[in-house]
Amino acid sequence: MTNAIDRNAVHHMKWWGWGVDGVGFHHEDKPGFAPFVKFAVGLDLGTAVRTGEPSFDDLNVPLSNATEEFTAELASIVGAENVTTDDMARVVHTYGKSIRDLIRVRSNTILRSPDVVIYPADEAEVQQIVDAAVAANAVIIPFGGGSNIAGSLEPIPGEARTIVSLDLGRLRAVIDIDTDSGLARIQAGSQGPDLEEQLNKQGWTIGHFPDSFTHSTVGGWVATRSSGMQSDKYGDIANIARGMRVVRPGGVLVLRPLPSTSSGPSVREMILGSEGKLGVITEVTVQVHRIPEKRDVYAYFFPNWKSGIAAMQAISESDATPSITRISDSRETSFSLATSKNRKGVSKFMAESALPGIMKAKGWNLDDICLSFIGFEGSVSHAKHQKSLVDDIVKKHGGMGVGSGPGILYDQKKFDTPYLRDFLLDMGAAGDVSETAAPWSKLVGVHEAVYAAARGAYEQLGNDGWIMSHMSHSYHSGACLYFTFAFTFGDDPIAEYNLVKNAIQQAFVDNHATISHHHGVGLEHSPWLTQDISEEGVKIMTGLFESADPAQNFNPGKILPK
Amino acid sequence: MTNAIDRNAVHHMKWWGWGVDGVGFHHEDKPGFAPFVKFAVGLDLGTAVRTGEPSFDDLNVPLSNATEEFTAELASIVGAENVTTDDMARVVHTYGKSIRDLIRVRSNTILRSPDVVIYPADEAEVQQIVDAAVAANAVIIPFGGGSNIAGSLEPIPGEARTIVSLDLGRLRAVIDIDTDSGLARIQAGSQGPDLEEQLNKQGWTIGHFPDSFTHSTVGGWVATRSSGMQSDKYGDIANIARGMRVVRPGGVLVLRPLPSTSSGPSVREMILGSEGKLGVITEVTVQVHRIPEKRDVYAYFFPNWKSGIAAMQAISESDATPSITRISDSRETSFSLATSKNRKGVSKFMAESALPGIMKAKGWNLDDICLSFIGFEGSVSHAKHQKSLVDDIVKKHGGMGVGSGPGILYDQKKFDTPYLRDFLLDMGAAGDVSETAAPWSKLVGVHEAVYAAARGAYEQLGNDGWIMSHMSHSYHSGACLYFTFAFTFGDDPIAEYNLVKNAIQQAFVDNHATISHHHGVGLEHSPWLTQDISEEGVKIMTGLFESADPAQNFNPGKILPK
Repeated sequence: MTNAIDRNAVHHMKWWGWGVDGVGFHHEDKPGFAPFVKFAVGLDLGTAVRTGEPSFDDLNVPLSNATEEFTAELASIVGAENVTTDDMARVVHTYGKSIRDLIRVRSNTILRSPDVVIYPADEAEVQQIVDAAVAANAVIIPFGGGSNIAGSLEPIPGEARTIVSLDLGRLRAVIDIDTDSGLARIQAGSQGPDLEEQLNKQGWTIGHFPDSFTHSTVGGWVATRSSGMQSDKYGDIANIARGMRVVRPGGVLVLRPLPSTSSGPSVREMILGSEGKLGVITEVTVQVHRIPEKRDVYAYFFPNWKSGIAAMQAISESDATPSITRISDSRETSFSLATSKNRKGVSKFMAESALPGIMKAKGWNLDDICLSFIGFEGSVSHAKHQKSLVDDIVKKHGGMGVGSGPGILYDQKKFDTPYLRDFLLDMGAAGDVSETAAPWSKLVGVHEAVYAAARGAYEQLGNDGWIMSHMSHSYHSGACLYFTFAFTFGDDPIAEYNLVKNAIQQAFVDNHATISHHHGVGLEHSPWLTQDISEEGVKIMTGLFESADPAQNFNPGKILPK
Repeated sequence: MTNAIDRNAVHHMKWWGWGVDGVGFHHEDKPGFAPFVKFAVGLDLGTAVRTGEPSFDDLNVPLSNATEEFTAELASIVGAENVTTDDMARVVHTYGKSIRDLIRVRSNTILRSPDVVIYPADEAEVQQIVDAAVAANAVIIPFGGGSNIAGSLEPIPGEARTIVSLDLGRLRAVIDIDTDSGLARIQAGSQGPDLEEQLNKQGWTIGHFPDSFTHSTVGGWVATRSSGMQSDKYGDIANIARGMRVVRPGGVLVLRPLPSTSSGPSVREMILGSEGKLGVITEVTVQVHRIPEKRDVYAYFFPNWKSGIAAMQAISESDATPSITRISDSRETSFSLATSKNRKGVSKFMAESALPGIMKAKGWNLDDICLSFIGFEGSVSHAKHQKSLVDDIVKKHGGMGVGSGPGILYDQKKFDTPYLRDFLLDMGAAGDVSETAAPWSKLVGVHEAVYAAARGAYEQLGNDGWIMSHMSHSYHSGACLYFTFAFTFGDDPIAEYNLVKNAIQQAFVDNHATISHHHGVGLEHSPWLTQDISEEGVKIMTGLFESADPAQNFNPGKILPK
């Protein structure tokens, strides 16, 4: 069908952190950053000792339990060069990239790793692998880009069976584009930049840009029910992914691309968010759009969080159809100002322009101001018209526009945040994210409750801690709230992290919000699933998984609460 | 929670046909209608003998097998006045309103009817009924408005267990409206006009207007994954229904209203389209919208089907966001012209205006012209702007606008078609509908294949037959095609109907289209489910149903192929 990609051409992130070797966060050109970190988490970057890159040789990697016979059988399917039990490959496929994952891998805490990693060339090989693994009662964990932060990828400690990490990296072609329908068939292992480049060459875009875009795959997006930064226009992956091919024991589930269907409970929606538990996604037919003539991101300021959220709600209710609606709370706004490069972006406005004076004259408290980014895409006249509709609403809610300059910077650095997290970890502070969604009427309450929960957790730790938030992904009836938190850790960073993370997740479900808007469930969010979808919901989902995978060969232990 | 509605205030359609007593189709004011029927299906309305209203007393209604003990148990839950085994109630709850249903009930063909009909007042009573029925190993078939045409409601002949028709008609309140979020909690038995009136009084609309609107319920919409005429703007019920409460044995499934969530495979999407097989829907939290300032439906003509479909596709790909995009093929266009009231609507244009002359001058063949309706909603300026975007696209595709006059008529008579079907049945012609969805690139092919299939079936019958179609419900990657077919029947109308219907359904799945876009599966479409979602899809769905309902107490025999 397509030319097989060489296994060595499959890119993985570095085993001990986010992204590729040689790229990292630095703050030499961000004079406000170090004071901000000192203020936020009490960490003095001037005196903190930076942990060096960990040594792979020091790692205790669990031995592979794969029998020679089983490995040979796998090799007979894909060729010996595409099966491996070597330690580096198995470590790379052990965890995703949550802060828990990074802490564990750096602290030599690998209780269980895959026993064998395999790189099939095509769907037929995936089918043979699945059939062989199920026949041998092995465990299969599909692996895309490895960027998951919900614990969806890791093997369960205590799993006695042989665990196969099935890496889809060689399946990365855009197979064809149905230009009349705006539908592209894409192999599941295709990573964001790769597939977008293949589409762009023919004048198309997928319009799906999650934070993980640079390292995640279309199969992973489907498996975790991902959302992208421009989902207001293009939809979440649940809207974008129309057709699917999923390899299951004995056969391929084929869901043809359909704009909509009432053929019973949606099997398509069962695969979405299934995290490998219903089979191995090999191909997704996604909606694609012609690259828009115009794409602008404008920045706005609001006097405070409540007025900003009210404006976002009013936009979602209006006739306007922006591609991005995003607002940072006052703390995330102060973070953005501190981390901007000197004399660029929003900090330039604040430092050099008349803006602070204007804000003060309006009676704004500069500690409360909230920075918003709103995007417009389409024809030149459409983008202009949408902006005028939005500008009116912003004005009515007491906000003010500050042009497209900061938006351009937002666009350029939107995929860089994970590198910052690695840098802070090197310096002694742990940070990660929790995100949720709730109806508009609940958002301010969720925000307050999460802040109170985090404060409570930090007090318990007796430690300085930071939390900030933005709202993104608007829908008619609600939106996503995205929280970033960080603290300087002590002796047991995982336990300390769990205390904060758990407090935040509990605040979500206690306040009408869901356990995750677009990161999936994995192990990280499963303890709250029952409180999210009720006992009967868990029963129905359990029945789905158990009937589809009675011997629990597919990514066992994930999603469902223990 | 709400004041209980009296059982006698629950409206049902007449037992032998669509709608309410005393309302029917007549053609005295439509001079073109009789000649059209003669031309289309060879039926002479001047000489045909109209079947009178059937006599209920002549019906052989199967005896109820409900034991006195069981009926008494049910009566102890809801009160004796809200349980009945009387024949009329059981017949009313036996079938939906497909042509097969009408033919069977009129020809005294009731092989199995519910044994007992029950009208709970609230969710707590539904729970008690469900628990009692499951304990007694009885069958539960939830009943909303009874308008289903996919065979989703009828008991399976040969079912030896006691069958309970659980009528939600007393649960019909709009409980509350979250005005900040645009979300309304509505009891599942609420019928379209009733709930829309309750919403309208407070300035809101649900925006969901299926053809069955006047007699269907919000619970039924969810259970069959319904779409409405304005779904281009408001979404299908799958988009509109955010929260749900579903009574299951031993407890209530509670899905809180969320704008989006990645909490594993969507249980919400499992309830959507489940046709009562996963429990009894008692409440749905739906998106509601403020009644728009402006709502217009404009009519357009295209020289032929291909140019019209191309224009609809171009609109869906453009920045324009109309609320309705609909185009009739040339045959449905000729039907619309024939059935218009004299000197009104589109026929007026054709009969009295310069339009036919203009079309001919453009080189159009009047036999090929296609009538389109496109709707615009929102602020006055938004509706105007959308129309200008659409007008440009129509022009580019060779079409022409003819104003809003015909659109107003479309709006007024949009819910009347089922009455016409009953009239034709009285006169000796059977008609019904089949609808589907497919990617844009496949629509013209599906249309041609369905026509060929219907022609083949009519030839086999040796009978005159008619088929016509329109496209509606546009999505980014495709649209719905809706076919209406009719023929004068002979000795075995059901067998003749099956021949035509089966040919059409087979043409759907053979040509990249689904078995149903918005009517559900029931018994009518289940034979093609495997060809639609593949064997593995059916296996997954079967596992879902069997694990959630191991003794098959909930609407057994539906959706899954035999």
